[in-house]
Amino acid sequence: MYRAPLAEIAFTLKHVAGLGDLQAMPGHEDLTDDLVDAILAEAARFAAEEIAPLNAVSDRAGATFSDGSVTTTPGWRDCYHRWIEGGWNALPSSPDHGGQGLPLMLYAATLEMWNSASMAFALGPTLTVGAVEALDKHASAELKSRYLDKLVSGEWMGTMNLTEPQAGSDLNALKARAERRPDGTYRIFGQKIFITYGEHDITDNIVHLVLARLPDAPAGTRGISLFLVPKFLVNEDGSLGARNDVRCAGVEHKLGIHGSPTCTMIYGDGEGAIGWLVGEENRGLACMFTMMNNARLAVGIQGLGIAERAFQQALAYALDRRQGRAPGDAGEGMSAIAGHPDIKRSLLFMQARTQVARAICFACAHAIDMASLATDPEAKAHWSDRAGLLTPIAKALSTDIGVEVASTGVQIHGGMGYIEETGAAQHLRDARIAPIYEGTNGIQAIDLVQRKLPLAGGAHVRGFIANLAALAKEAAGSNQPDLGAVAPVLEEAVADLAVATEWLLQAQADGRTAEALSGATPYLRLAGLTLGAALLVKGALRSDPADAVAAARRRLLARFFADTALRETAALKADVVGSAQAILAFDPQALAS
Amino acid sequence: MYRAPLAEIAFTLKHVAGLGDLQAMPGHEDLTDDLVDAILAEAARFAAEEIAPLNAVSDRAGATFSDGSVTTTPGWRDCYHRWIEGGWNALPSSPDHGGQGLPLMLYAATLEMWNSASMAFALGPTLTVGAVEALDKHASAELKSRYLDKLVSGEWMGTMNLTEPQAGSDLNALKARAERRPDGTYRIFGQKIFITYGEHDITDNIVHLVLARLPDAPAGTRGISLFLVPKFLVNEDGSLGARNDVRCAGVEHKLGIHGSPTCTMIYGDGEGAIGWLVGEENRGLACMFTMMNNARLAVGIQGLGIAERAFQQALAYALDRRQGRAPGDAGEGMSAIAGHPDIKRSLLFMQARTQVARAICFACAHAIDMASLATDPEAKAHWSDRAGLLTPIAKALSTDIGVEVASTGVQIHGGMGYIEETGAAQHLRDARIAPIYEGTNGIQAIDLVQRKLPLAGGAHVRGFIANLAALAKEAAGSNQPDLGAVAPVLEEAVADLAVATEWLLQAQADGRTAEALSGATPYLRLAGLTLGAALLVKGALRSDPADAVAAARRRLLARFFADTALRETAALKADVVGSAQAILAFDPQALAS
Repeated sequence: MYRAPLAEIAFTLKHVAGLGDLQAMPGHEDLTDDLVDAILAEAARFAAEEIAPLNAVSDRAGATFSDGSVTTTPGWRDCYHRWIEGGWNALPSSPDHGGQGLPLMLYAATLEMWNSASMAFALGPTLTVGAVEALDKHASAELKSRYLDKLVSGEWMGTMNLTEPQAGSDLNALKARAERRPDGTYRIFGQKIFITYGEHDITDNIVHLVLARLPDAPAGTRGISLFLVPKFLVNEDGSLGARNDVRCAGVEHKLGIHGSPTCTMIYGDGEGAIGWLVGEENRGLACMFTMMNNARLAVGIQGLGIAERAFQQALAYALDRRQGRAPGDAGEGMSAIAGHPDIKRSLLFMQARTQVARAICFACAHAIDMASLATDPEAKAHWSDRAGLLTPIAKALSTDIGVEVASTGVQIHGGMGYIEETGAAQHLRDARIAPIYEGTNGIQAIDLVQRKLPLAGGAHVRGFIANLAALAKEAAGSNQPDLGAVAPVLEEAVADLAVATEWLLQAQADGRTAEALSGATPYLRLAGLTLGAALLVKGALRSDPADAVAAARRRLLARFFADTALRETAALKADVVGSAQAILAFDPQALAS
Repeated sequence: MYRAPLAEIAFTLKHVAGLGDLQAMPGHEDLTDDLVDAILAEAARFAAEEIAPLNAVSDRAGATFSDGSVTTTPGWRDCYHRWIEGGWNALPSSPDHGGQGLPLMLYAATLEMWNSASMAFALGPTLTVGAVEALDKHASAELKSRYLDKLVSGEWMGTMNLTEPQAGSDLNALKARAERRPDGTYRIFGQKIFITYGEHDITDNIVHLVLARLPDAPAGTRGISLFLVPKFLVNEDGSLGARNDVRCAGVEHKLGIHGSPTCTMIYGDGEGAIGWLVGEENRGLACMFTMMNNARLAVGIQGLGIAERAFQQALAYALDRRQGRAPGDAGEGMSAIAGHPDIKRSLLFMQARTQVARAICFACAHAIDMASLATDPEAKAHWSDRAGLLTPIAKALSTDIGVEVASTGVQIHGGMGYIEETGAAQHLRDARIAPIYEGTNGIQAIDLVQRKLPLAGGAHVRGFIANLAALAKEAAGSNQPDLGAVAPVLEEAVADLAVATEWLLQAQADGRTAEALSGATPYLRLAGLTLGAALLVKGALRSDPADAVAAARRRLLARFFADTALRETAALKADVVGSAQAILAFDPQALAS
């Protein structure tokens, strides 16, 4: 059972993340509140009625491999085709190729629902959208005309082929190779692993984007090129031709997302897989990076989607399951466990963190949209920097939240949570990949500290912190119940964030890189919790006073978060500025003897 | 691959947890350091060579159910029989029935190794030891003579049958019923769920301890009796007789510990299962409670065991896997990921928490031993209270640590961590049950706040806090590297613990029960982190200066823990004393509409 939290999604888009900024942009006159609400409502229906029932089935059946072919869960293919008929795959893509050209914010909101319904289902189209984006920005007109319309509609799916056994986080070590052919095509050879939806029975063709090296390429990441390699070659009239020299050698047996095939792909068993260059030779990684922000945000939204689903399931269980007598319960017999203070704490923990993830992910989508839509160069630079700053936070914090919330959901179920048929454990298993792929959360933290803090010479992050301080000040002056108690905690958190930020900027300016990197993970957490609290506060402040119930609920969430998680910022600040000595003195090799 | 951390286990027993107190007891002259070391070394060998290789196999094969029978993993039964031949099952039991009568501290140390080797394997004997304890304390001489020797040796295994579908944490709701028979036996009827090793092919007989109600029993937990119900009746000569009217109706499909069958048991399909009363009628729960401390500690040790295993695996991977270039690495090519500061942080996180769990679990075992061995009534009362105070902390903190450390282990493996064949994910799946069973960690926190803080009118917990303060003071005066930086953080943490403790005692004295219960979970965490830090400091202080490497390593662990986790105590204190308002204002039912 999943029911999309439509009211909270719409409120967060409109009143927390800043949808109004987009609606005020020239050319976005059609993006009315009514249109937004209608899109969300229909997505909610499809997610709940069509996708969600397949989630547990796909976990048990999994995608299976046999003799080079992958068979997805029964019902999966039909569901996908109904989904693309609804136009959902085309939602964020350019109208030039049949897309609906809707903002990323709307895409993020629908993506939350697809992931809540089934992360394994949502994952495939997420990769296709990434491929569309890379091709739209970098492919030749010829490639676009042959592939893009069908990828935008979803008639074909796309994949991303980066990882090799020796090259995961570090693409310098990439070995797949490409050879130039006189006809302007290339032949691709090599093995790629962990390829999501690398092979399947859902669509008639699969369009692989593959990183490989030319023979004369420089070493390292400046010698990597990007190629389009279709499973079936495409004739000039768009019909499918011969099978290309690419095959799936197996699928992984994973902890979760069993419905999503994770493939080992072999390119060039024979003559070599025929590929077409995307962008310029040796500039493949730059092509990949253009879509990195969006892909990382999409993974953050997986954490959000799982958290929401796990919360709904735990809430339903806690209201139904009766054990013991809660203090103050005047009823007969046992109390619903939701009445016990410790379970209330757990439910609030889940609800507050889920909303924090939602607000941050939608705010990140807003920044990406603004960076894309703004015409004023200063505004464009500002929003581009903001998107850069928010992306690692959205990815890492939201995926950590996905795991934390799903694990708390298991706990609320007690012994039943450990039994697979209950479904609570699947959420934890599914959620656990998100902190790992698309750049581990450790790499997100390093990205935040090494590449994002120094943006605009540190001025951008300082402006960001000033924005949070302004929200704390507004809360302090609001005279609203609960927010008066929240404001000083948020003010302290913002001050902690400022201190840790300056320390990291200085450490890097001084060339103390290892010290700065030692504090990266707690710094990201510090920034994320503070931002999350500020956005909960913003939600409370922007609530319609006429909807007193929702306004009180948002104030309570902000209050709970301030009383619990936000208090951690002092410890995180101390960790950032104080733990490098112990960390750098540690020699893991000495333990191995 | 598992290798028992023998040096650290022995050091923790002797110099942190207080094995010397037991060695100084009259009648323990044989418990020499040499004997202890010999026992640990042989357990380490058996765990690493015989049990550990079965762990992954048992996860994949699982225990299977067919037609009332349960088949365990190939090799499981043989391994068990070699294990009992080694006398390991008999280690903690009374010599009156063939046991070795060794202290619980030694049992705890060996149990860590069995659980590191395979938690699913160690779980069965843990239940048998619980059954032995209950019978030894409460059963008639007749029952003892018929069952105890074979349970102590491990020739038969024992089970605990408490849970029913409607009665989990709340045994008031228990419905299984018992009828008196003229011959002094009873007939038992009812369904029990989640019965660990309820049915299997390992031993020829299984001795079930079953909670049930007599027809005229009072309602609630004061009307529950404990019965011994063997799978096969036992003739006077000790040979096996007829099959009793008890059967396994199925096994659960669980997230982890697949090697351990979790059974639904049906008592009394026909005439009723023949049972014998243990202890007095309607006093069954009291019988169960006598072994509760030990069972809860044993579950805490599961968290410890998994944490150690996960740490070893992650360390080995991090030393082997090469990606990127660590700051300051002057070598060629890619660095081992163990050289990256963020991975060092993760490894230290795992190592420090594992040692915290070890120190707390062994200290808890020490208190239980002292309570049992002390002859002076005041000392006995003191150690009994201390065991009561430490048990919920050992259970909850160590099992949370098991999950945290196993999850960090998955993360260090990157994408490989999500692939089941790597084995890292199994540790996370196995570890996830421990915070749930034997009283959820929420219930441990409630136990700590409601029953343990008020011991001796609050004087006991105040004395405990004074012990921690003394360690902080000793660190401050030690003039040892790192410890000077640790001492003030530990002092602050102890002060935070004292404030939170007094607040909870006062809240309960005032009858503000719901407020106190709202803060139970962060209070347990606060107490556990502070105790853990104090014991890391104690380890550093008690290290042999001649072993400079080990001493420096222990100081570094204490330093790292103080710079990171221990800083959280201020937030936890604020949470304990400040979050009740938001929690109690929260109405989960209002979200369901």
